[in-house]
Amino acid sequence: MRESSPSAPEIVETEGQPRLNRRQAAKVRTRQKVLDAARALFAERGYDAATIRDIAKGAGMSTGAVFANFQDKAELFEAVFAEEMEGLLADIRGAATEGRVLDRLANGLTAGYHRSLDHLPLMQAMVARSWFQPEDADQRSRAFVRPLVEAVAEALQAGVREGELRQDVDVALVARMIWDVFISNYRFAAYDNWGIEELTPHIRKQLDLILSSQLARQ
Amino acid sequence: MRESSPSAPEIVETEGQPRLNRRQAAKVRTRQKVLDAARALFAERGYDAATIRDIAKGAGMSTGAVFANFQDKAELFEAVFAEEMEGLLADIRGAATEGRVLDRLANGLTAGYHRSLDHLPLMQAMVARSWFQPEDADQRSRAFVRPLVEAVAEALQAGVREGELRQDVDVALVARMIWDVFISNYRFAAYDNWGIEELTPHIRKQLDLILSSQLARQ
Repeated sequence: MRESSPSAPEIVETEGQPRLNRRQAAKVRTRQKVLDAARALFAERGYDAATIRDIAKGAGMSTGAVFANFQDKAELFEAVFAEEMEGLLADIRGAATEGRVLDRLANGLTAGYHRSLDHLPLMQAMVARSWFQPEDADQRSRAFVRPLVEAVAEALQAGVREGELRQDVDVALVARMIWDVFISNYRFAAYDNWGIEELTPHIRKQLDLILSSQLARQ
Repeated sequence: MRESSPSAPEIVETEGQPRLNRRQAAKVRTRQKVLDAARALFAERGYDAATIRDIAKGAGMSTGAVFANFQDKAELFEAVFAEEMEGLLADIRGAATEGRVLDRLANGLTAGYHRSLDHLPLMQAMVARSWFQPEDADQRSRAFVRPLVEAVAEALQAGVREGELRQDVDVALVARMIWDVFISNYRFAAYDNWGIEELTPHIRKQLDLILSSQLARQ
């Protein structure tokens, strides 16, 4: 998910900041180590049962070192969540480039499954938390999900522009439904051992069902 | 949700057991008191943060009295979950009786929202837990959800039988999608303050979108 530039891997996480001195670079590495330990523990235990103490232990640090980087568990979870959603967005966008609307969306969302199936428990912990979190945490996490729903909406809008979909498609409604269905399918992966072989035709059938009434009459 | 028979309210929960002596009746009341306290605490804190200790406190009992009725927190949660799903099923079925498929489903699912909006945090806690629970707990909770998805499937099958829907509708796929969408909408209630006025037209639009390609050509 981290797009690593091979020549300078240690400055990857700094979002365009040009150069880091040794101390700054160490800080970035520490932060990433904490994030990685947090990802692993949230995936193992879910949000509530994960403790800062055990995250610190997983990162080989003191809790003080964790708190030097993150105010509390909620902020740490949010950073992991943001990282995950950014990666998912990049993968979905990257794969949703060719063909008709249905193909673009099916390929994009399948790429999303591809990326997250190897850390499915983290996805589960994230969806679980999205259902039971304080209002302000929801507002923030929603800001990270919005671009993903918008990516679906853009694919639909392109379909409208190109005359493949009807002019009166309720893009917001359809995009949100597709997103909800996409997320719901992770349950089959989690509890029915569905792999990419099952998820791929399934999301395609669902997209077909949702979109077929929205196709422009040819 | 409990369908109370006014003459003998204390034996309502016993599922058709004919008569209770005084001691048995007291046991049933105790069990229900624990369940009600558990419902309240799960709704307030979610599954993980709720403790048997505080559930017992809420019921005005010792933890020993709680453990005399339920083996552990997971079993207690499951009993609350089962009670909720049974009530939801009764309400959905009760309202999904008249009109065309779309009307039946829209009325049924709207009745479901009606019933659960006044204890929305409990629904949220339940959905959250459904995403992050042990495999065996999932298997059991799924058994309580299955009749609900089947109720949706039956409405679809009736539509096929009566010639309203196409003969080749993938009933299992469509029913599951409708269920997933129905559940996903609770998020709008939880975090966007949607009430029944917003949810009713929304689920109808979604049903329309899902079903319109499945209508038999008239």
